Amino acid sequence: MPVQTITLIGAGNLGYHLARTFHSKGFCIQQIYSRAIANAKELAALVNAEPIDDLQTLVHADLLVICVTDSAIQVISDELPVFDSIVVHTSGSTPMEVLHRHSRHGVFYPLQTFSKGFPVDFQNIPLLLESSSFNVQQELMQVANKISNSVFSVDSLQRQKLHLAAVFACNFTNHMMAVASSLLKEANLPFSMLENLILETVQKAIKSGNPESVQTGPAIRGNLGIMQAHSELLKDKLLWQKIYTFVSESIIEMGKGGKAGYETF
Amino acid sequence: MPVQTITLIGAGNLGYHLARTFHSKGFCIQQIYSRAIANAKELAALVNAEPIDDLQTLVHADLLVICVTDSAIQVISDELPVFDSIVVHTSGSTPMEVLHRHSRHGVFYPLQTFSKGFPVDFQNIPLLLESSSFNVQQELMQVANKISNSVFSVDSLQRQKLHLAAVFACNFTNHMMAVASSLLKEANLPFSMLENLILETVQKAIKSGNPESVQTGPAIRGNLGIMQAHSELLKDKLLWQKIYTFVSESIIEMGKGGKAGYETF
Repeated sequence: MPVQTITLIGAGNLGYHLARTFHSKGFCIQQIYSRAIANAKELAALVNAEPIDDLQTLVHADLLVICVTDSAIQVISDELPVFDSIVVHTSGSTPMEVLHRHSRHGVFYPLQTFSKGFPVDFQNIPLLLESSSFNVQQELMQVANKISNSVFSVDSLQRQKLHLAAVFACNFTNHMMAVASSLLKEANLPFSMLENLILETVQKAIKSGNPESVQTGPAIRGNLGIMQAHSELLKDKLLWQKIYTFVSESIIEMGKGGKAGYETF
Repeated sequence: MPVQTITLIGAGNLGYHLARTFHSKGFCIQQIYSRAIANAKELAALVNAEPIDDLQTLVHADLLVICVTDSAIQVISDELPVFDSIVVHTSGSTPMEVLHRHSRHGVFYPLQTFSKGFPVDFQNIPLLLESSSFNVQQELMQVANKISNSVFSVDSLQRQKLHLAAVFACNFTNHMMAVASSLLKEANLPFSMLENLILETVQKAIKSGNPESVQTGPAIRGNLGIMQAHSELLKDKLLWQKIYTFVSESIIEMGKGGKAGYETF
């Protein structure tokens, strides 16, 4: 029997976006749980659900979606009453097995970063599924295919590597921009000066299909003079200096294997 | 008297794009120099200029634009015959003073990454100018304003900091994507899975005007368990493990100052 009713455990950014998307695709959102009842109420009101702050007041739903901080998943799973619901978590790095108390369990991992203010369209967001049985997999597939065009089955190790890759490509990329922004502030220059460059860089990397092949900059050119000058500029920021050194080393290392190495900037 | 004739020293990626842009904006490209005459010929044919591979055959031009690898700028400058031309280099990190032999000199630094296959539109590329005199500054401004809507006067230290910022925001960002791509390959997953996530990340950072404020991921959430698991996954890649550690530390450090810290991914 296909999933019709869904309960969300957690009313943070991901819970917010998932609840609204499931609701808009015709699923019935049964309950929204949050430790802070105010958060549960706010979201529940948007999707016509019952807000709760006590897991013992859960009623049956076909699918229970745990979207809380990774470190709380196991605790929540252990506190959940055992129904015959499918219980999934939504974490990139948590093994599926933490849900083993529930005979039908799985992972429903949307590969995207969510912030409350910014709308997202799940259609283009890859959903990565893992399941405790073929039957559960089929039911999760049906739910996933209703909200996304890009659904994959992966095992826990693949998902973990993918999450790690996403940390590099997304979280670390954002931090590189944050460091740049801070350096510009120091020089009394606006971050907006870099916008065009950043967009061009990312579009080129994506278009190429292989970012390694379009690497530019002093490291890939082996320009030690500039790298030393940059390191000197960072002498009061030891952590950034280390990052500069190791990322440059890694660029040089990777460049040895391929034929990266464009000439300018 | 405004600049009318321009000679390019260097026929690499930047030389290629600059020559074509100057030509299209009505400047007369006098000569194209390259150590490899074939490169000079190829570009010269596109912009109706004379190809040369010997600096002693240079004739007068109002503006000489040196666009060669940073480490070769000084050498080229010292070999150039001394005319009354304005001589500029195009490097982000090289001091203007390396051109001091030429009484009228400056820097004409386009803040962008160039690769031959990818077309660029200079209109939106910031051009950073530095000049040996007010008069030179005015003439360079006239040239710059003809090809870009975004022209700035900066001193050498500002330009150097900007270049360093660009290395973080562009070169290092690209490398983060390259590492991600390599990790995905290992897990038999396509890099294209991350495209949407990367674009979203970058658009959010730019839209916010302050990437620090939209930082996501395990580090900003202080999720040590995930960070340890990721570090473990990288145990055979020591350089990437170091990068993971130091970038995570820097994210945590920066987060202490601000109120970054979204909940998911």
